Amino acid sequence: MSAAPLLDYAAVWVFALTGALTASRAQLDIVGFIFLAGLTALGGGTMRDLLLDRDTVFWIGQPGYLAVACTAALLIFFTAHLVESRLRWVVWLDAAALGVAVPAGMAAALADGQPSGIVIVMGVVTGTLGGLMRDVVANEVPLVLTQGELYATAACAGAGAGLIAAALGAGPTAALATAGVV
Amino acid sequence: MSAAPLLDYAAVWVFALTGALTASRAQLDIVGFIFLAGLTALGGGTMRDLLLDRDTVFWIGQPGYLAVACTAALLIFFTAHLVESRLRWVVWLDAAALGVAVPAGMAAALADGQPSGIVIVMGVVTGTLGGLMRDVVANEVPLVLTQGELYATAACAGAGAGLIAAALGAGPTAALATAGVV
Amino acid sequence: MSAAPLLDYAAVWVFALTGALTASRAQLDIVGFIFLAGLTALGGGTMRDLLLDRDTVFWIGQPGYLAVACTAALLIFFTAHLVESRLRWVVWLDAAALGVAVPAGMAAALADGQPSGIVIVMGVVTGTLGGLMRDVVANEVPLVLTQGELYATAACAGAGAGLIAAALGAGPTAALATAGVV
Repeated sequence: MSAAPLLDYAAVWVFALTGALTASRAQLDIVGFIFLAGLTALGGGTMRDLLLDRDTVFWIGQPGYLAVACTAALLIFFTAHLVESRLRWVVWLDAAALGVAVPAGMAAALADGQPSGIVIVMGVVTGTLGGLMRDVVANEVPLVLTQGELYATAACAGAGAGLIAAALGAGPTAALATAGVV
Repeated sequence: MSAAPLLDYAAVWVFALTGALTASRAQLDIVGFIFLAGLTALGGGTMRDLLLDRDTVFWIGQPGYLAVACTAALLIFFTAHLVESRLRWVVWLDAAALGVAVPAGMAAALADGQPSGIVIVMGVVTGTLGGLMRDVVANEVPLVLTQGELYATAACAGAGAGLIAAALGAGPTAALATAGVV
Repeated sequence: MSAAPLLDYAAVWVFALTGALTASRAQLDIVGFIFLAGLTALGGGTMRDLLLDRDTVFWIGQPGYLAVACTAALLIFFTAHLVESRLRWVVWLDAAALGVAVPAGMAAALADGQPSGIVIVMGVVTGTLGGLMRDVVANEVPLVLTQGELYATAACAGAGAGLIAAALGAGPTAALATAGVV
């Protein structure tokens, strides 16, 4: 299970970057940066854990996730003025985080013993709801809706790879690594 | 209890129709249709199940709900261009789904042994929050707020009928049927 | 523990006032007043209870909270036309409710045996998410983001006072009272 936490941390970090970039586009102060970064980074996984009725939401059990999100917010707060075309960065980082968060969400559902359909849905929930909350709170039309096909491609590729590898008898670690690479 | 699942499926189907029609109004692609249909169809009941701390969210236990929502999304995706004045359809279908979802939500709370006040609130939560999420995500002012009196009438009628029938000693099935008809 | 419920009721009442004032600004009907007041008043504490996986969401166990929120909605419904500059009232009442809700949220997390980091985050969740939902549903940019520094000051002051008093060995009641006063 050593790969799953790493994927989780990577997804949290990249999602936090997109949240902070969105805060920068909306010209918020440092509080807004941290708030939006945390909401984006933790929102999807939180919904997954609530829906699966897991005993502990992932970042409550391991507060290290909070620290990761905060560092991403601070990094962007001090460097965002150097970045051009922040919206394009948000779109591409969001797709990248999605590709990582989908297999991470699927891993949690698999570990919970859910059937395949629910495993896929939990991957989608984990991958999309954080960014959805970010855009809703920033009062924009969610990227997941306007960029649907790009996102769906990334998500399906990750999900498909994860399921195939799992079906072939590979351990969950290998399956997740495959999904993460795709 | 044979009527309760039927009411649930009917509410999920009609809510999914409104979500897909909203996606059509916002000119989203097929991914957006399925996403908004699913969010609208499952959002209210999911909040009810989380609030009541039920062991399993209803559509995780029975993935058939997901299939119902997807078929509604596909149906609208291929026929929405034939529909005139989609907003009016959304309003009326939403009110219809509300009339069905309120007693379905009340049934779940009754089965959970909640007092009357909470039973009513759970009916409202089940009936309104799915449409609320749909409108918030589509960046519109929620219909439940702007059309409040129409919706409240439908919801109160359903809720009242359900409670009266239950108080008169009818079984929950009869109570729900009454509420559904009203 | 006699102070904690009082703080909770006070926070619910003041948050409900801000929700109803927002409904007044958006020219909603009585249904919208009650809906927005309830969402604002109960939203933050509900998220705290879901995240901590507490057995019962606070207002389901004690429906008196619902009644408090409804009376605030009705009060504003009949008097809001007498109020000038409702947005300023919303901002200041919101900051006041935040100052009360943060220690109330921390008290719940402390009683749950959480570490300090999570206690602080739960205070922030309880204090901000209700107002966030209000603004998102009313289709405005959330005050917590645009007024971030004012809110953060109020929240940090309350949280810091609460933690210091707790660390000094005072009972939770004294700690909460201190936090509430600040």
